[in-house]
Order: sequence, then C-alpha cells, then structure tokens
Amino acid sequence: MHSDNWLLLHRTVRFGDTDAAGVMHFHQLLRWCHEAYEESLEAFGVAPACVFPMAAADRPAGLEAPAVALPIVHCSADFRRPLVCGDPLVIELEPVRLDPGSFEVRYRFQRVRTGEEPVDAALGLTRHLAIEPASRLRCSLPDPVQRWLEAAAVASGGIRPV
Amino acid sequence: MHSDNWLLLHRTVRFGDTDAAGVMHFHQLLRWCHEAYEESLEAFGVAPACVFPMAAADRPAGLEAPAVALPIVHCSADFRRPLVCGDPLVIELEPVRLDPGSFEVRYRFQRVRTGEEPVDAALGLTRHLAIEPASRLRCSLPDPVQRWLEAAAVASGGIRPV
Amino acid sequence: MHSDNWLLLHRTVRFGDTDAAGVMHFHQLLRWCHEAYEESLEAFGVAPACVFPMAAADRPAGLEAPAVALPIVHCSADFRRPLVCGDPLVIELEPVRLDPGSFEVRYRFQRVRTGEEPVDAALGLTRHLAIEPASRLRCSLPDPVQRWLEAAAVASGGIRPV
Amino acid sequence: MHSDNWLLLHRTVRFGDTDAAGVMHFHQLLRWCHEAYEESLEAFGVAPACVFPMAAADRPAGLEAPAVALPIVHCSADFRRPLVCGDPLVIELEPVRLDPGSFEVRYRFQRVRTGEEPVDAALGLTRHLAIEPASRLRCSLPDPVQRWLEAAAVASGGIRPV
Repeated sequence: MHSDNWLLLHRTVRFGDTDAAGVMHFHQLLRWCHEAYEESLEAFGVAPACVFPMAAADRPAGLEAPAVALPIVHCSADFRRPLVCGDPLVIELEPVRLDPGSFEVRYRFQRVRTGEEPVDAALGLTRHLAIEPASRLRCSLPDPVQRWLEAAAVASGGIRPV
Repeated sequence: MHSDNWLLLHRTVRFGDTDAAGVMHFHQLLRWCHEAYEESLEAFGVAPACVFPMAAADRPAGLEAPAVALPIVHCSADFRRPLVCGDPLVIELEPVRLDPGSFEVRYRFQRVRTGEEPVDAALGLTRHLAIEPASRLRCSLPDPVQRWLEAAAVASGGIRPV
Repeated sequence: MHSDNWLLLHRTVRFGDTDAAGVMHFHQLLRWCHEAYEESLEAFGVAPACVFPMAAADRPAGLEAPAVALPIVHCSADFRRPLVCGDPLVIELEPVRLDPGSFEVRYRFQRVRTGEEPVDAALGLTRHLAIEPASRLRCSLPDPVQRWLEAAAVASGGIRPV
Repeated sequence: MHSDNWLLLHRTVRFGDTDAAGVMHFHQLLRWCHEAYEESLEAFGVAPACVFPMAAADRPAGLEAPAVALPIVHCSADFRRPLVCGDPLVIELEPVRLDPGSFEVRYRFQRVRTGEEPVDAALGLTRHLAIEPASRLRCSLPDPVQRWLEAAAVASGGIRPV
C-alpha cells in the first residue's frame, strides 16, 4: 500500500481564499487542514458517516450515528510564504495518537509552482479529543480512527501498531 | 415600537471579506444576509433556540428542539457598487410571507461612507421553506416567525396582520 | 478533446460546509460555484494569473497584471436536496457569453451517493462583467475567457464560435 | 477614556458559524479574532484605510495606500467550551508589541448566557509582522498601530509607553 494516496494530498489556492493584500487570508489554512483530515480518512477507507454527524434523514441505511465526537481543542498555524490564487499545494499529513482518547494531525503545506523548487509555505496543527456527544465526557477514539492512526504511524516509520 | 431596531441593521466590511481584487468577495454577502436575518429575529424577541437547531447538550433547560426547520430553497444577490475593508453598511430587511409554509427576506445594503451620500451597494434575497426535519415534509411556519413576519408587514405599511 | 475534463468537475461536501441542521449551509454553494469556475478555466488551459489579480511580488515573471477584472454582478442558487458531509458531487458547468463584455456560468450540482441514482441537488448561477479595474468602466472580455466561452458553446452543441 | 470600548468587544454566534455537530466550527474563531482586531483598531480611532489594503479606486481621497503590510505569521486557538447558535460572547483583546516590527494579539472569548455565570469558551492568538509589501522585507510597525499598542499596554497596567 502506498502511503501517498491518503497522507499526501493536493489542492489549489482559489480566489475566494485571498484577501485585499493579494495573498491567502490566514484562517483559510485551518479550513484546508480540516478538509485534508477528512480527505485522508476517506482515502484510507473510513466512510464520513462513521466519523462525522449528519442530518438523521440522510444517514446511510443501517449505519448508526457516530457514538463519539472528535472536537478540536487546539489548533495552530505558521505561515512561511505568501500563497496566491492558483498556487498548487502539496499537503503532507502526519496524524499522531496522543493517548487513548486524543490525537493530533500535523499538516505541512508545500507550494509547488511550475519552474520553481517546492518550498514550505505553511504548517498547521489540529488536536482532537474523543467525547461522548450527549455527556461531553471523554472516551476512547473510535475504531476506524484508531486504524488510521496506526497505519499512519507505520507509514511514517515511527511508533509500531499495538 | 420603532421598526428601526429589528429591520434596520448595521455592519462593517472586514478584511477577510475581501479578495485580491481589493473588494468584498461576492459570496460573503449571502453570509451577511443570513446573519442579518438571525439578528433581526433576535432583536424582535425570538430566541435563537426557538428557530435554529443546536447541540442537544446546550439547549436551554425546558426548551424543546425546534419542531420546524426553515431551509433556504433559493437565494440571489445583485452587486451594484464595490465594497472595501472598513465600509460601513446599513442593511434594510423586508421579510415577506409567501404562503402558510414559506417566506422570503429581501435585503438592501447601503454603503454609508463618511462625507459621501449613502448609495445602494447590493441587494440580497433568501427564500425559506418550513419543513418537518425528520420527514422533510412541508408544514406551517413556526409561531414566532409568523409574528415576526406580521410585524414586518405592519412596519412596512403593507399587508395587515390576520 | 473531451469536454469532460473542464466542464464536468467533482467535489465532496466537507464537515465545515455543514451547519447545525446537519446539512450543507446554503452560502457555501456559491463558494463552490466560483471555485468550479476557476478550476474549469485552469483545466481548459487558462493560467489563473491571466485572469485573477494577485500580490505583485508573486506575479509570474514576464506576466502583466490582468488588464480586465470580471466582478460578479449577480448570482443565484436553487436548493433541491439536502447535502451532508461526505456527499460526492458532480458539477456541470455551462458558461454562456451574454454580450462582448459579460458572461454567465450556470452550475448544476448532482449528488452521486453510492447505491443511489444521481439526483439534482442544486443549481447555481454567476454573472460576470468585464471592467477596467482603475476606471471601473465596462470593456471587452479578455481573450482567454473568450476562447473558453467559445469552446464551451461548441461543447454544448450550441452557438458556434465566431 | 474607558478601555472598554476598544479592548472589550461583543458578538453573537451565528448559524453559519456552526457545523453538523451543532456547535461552532473551530476555524470560525480565527475569523472572529481578526474581525475583533479590526474592530478594536477602528474603535481606537485608526481608519481601516491606514492599515489595510483596498482597491485603489475606493481609497479615500488624499490617503496613500498603506506603506506597510501586517501579515499573520502565526496563529493559535484553544477551545474550552462548545458555542451554539445565539450564544452571546464577550471578547477581551490584549495587543502586545513584541519588537519594533511585530506584535501579537491575545483574544479571550467568554460565553455570557442569560442566567449562567460567564465562562471562558476559547482563547485565540494572532502574531503579525510588519513588512514592506513590494520587497516583503521586515520594517517598523506603522505609527497608528504603535499608538494602539502603547495605549493597550497602558490600559492593561503593563509596559509604559516610550
């Protein structure tokens, strides 16, 4: 299995992502981070309905609403180089389990303009906590997310799966 | 009762609302429309929890989840003049009941720069349908929204309340 | 040349596109429309720097800033079916020249859930006017946009190129 | 002069700020931070056109484009409690000069629900660097921003102005 197809993603800066300074407006990067996290889970084989809440009427037949929510408790971003409309980006994800009930995802955005060397443009981080939605008490990470974290650890040559 | 405090609102164009052309990016106007609709309901005296769904754990004690959802089935906007960061806006709302289960809100955005005459900058429209969330079948508008629509009709000197 | 690769696009509904009703929040659709318009131009072969303004310091060497801006003067959307997190969408674009200085793009969003027939989920429309940025006077559409409109007319079997 | 009117701001969580989990979607907080920073500068008496770039055609007569840009090089946020549609927020700003060419703003969001004690809901941080837009070289902070930072230091009982 290539790690490429679920830990290495691509996107392009769009016009609505920019502001009047002519470059990407900072908080759009955090949106890109979450979208990359969703895309990675999906590319790995985790159906969105297993992780994200949705209108009951649209839940796939036979699938229960997720018993666990994964709210973000912390996020950060570092901006190294300006990004303009049309800039192609490569996004490298590094999901890391922190403890049985939380994980973080580190994102590295590289700008890959034609005719230029790829350069680091920004770093992002989101930290997620597993909670029971009704009580908001902490709980264990859902199984599909555990598998994704373990596979990511293997792919990065780091911590071995349990 | 002055109509001013719930049908005439104010906001300022912010930097993140602009794009690299140096002016407001078009789809932000639709966001402003919905926020003005929410602000108008609240200023009229309708608690958000009576109209908008929210996490069950945060619902005010003793208040049921709204039995009716009001999704937007159509929206439009016309852009007359550019808006830049810092531009002060006056927003005039005209909510209109279309039938027992739907209404629309028309929004008129005026740009009120210091030392200039106010000018029309944009028009917006959102059309809402009352539905039962689980079945998605059409139903009647909720009472608080009915009262808001009737009061708006009176305020505009138009249709009299039933 | 297949029309598919620049008039038929794909995207997935993301969690941040939804609201507390559990479905896509209406104004996100207008963002998707503009992003589809940009992606179509790029897939057709028009470099973003030829059409969209950007920070001067990041303009590709040898490329002038676009002499023409294409602000949106009108937009609309119709919402037919709810979209939830993870829903795969097919977006069909129909760009139409209205006169020498303006065009519109019609967008048809189909929801293509696994195991279900594709269904129309929403329609969008953006209308663009060519103007000279400094004077804001109307002018002719830029050549690359003309070519894109002509090719779209041919692809749709409609109006023939001049 | 009361510090309240430019370092203590208010806003309300809106429906479009939420996601399908029924609570505020995390990256909206960073948007709120920047909007609070802009509102604070304006309430202190700094005209947006002195700090933020905008379309040349809309620049107030006699005012030059800002010679200095203030891009964000780092941001972060901590989320302590869920926020739902309609939640009233108090935002406390603490702008701090870091060196002659950079500053950060710390934001504390308190949730002030009727009938409940105010509680900390989230913290935000944005770090800004002064640069010359054309060269992107570091430079000194613009005078109006210096004055705002000094007044904030005095208001917080901290560092005295030079």
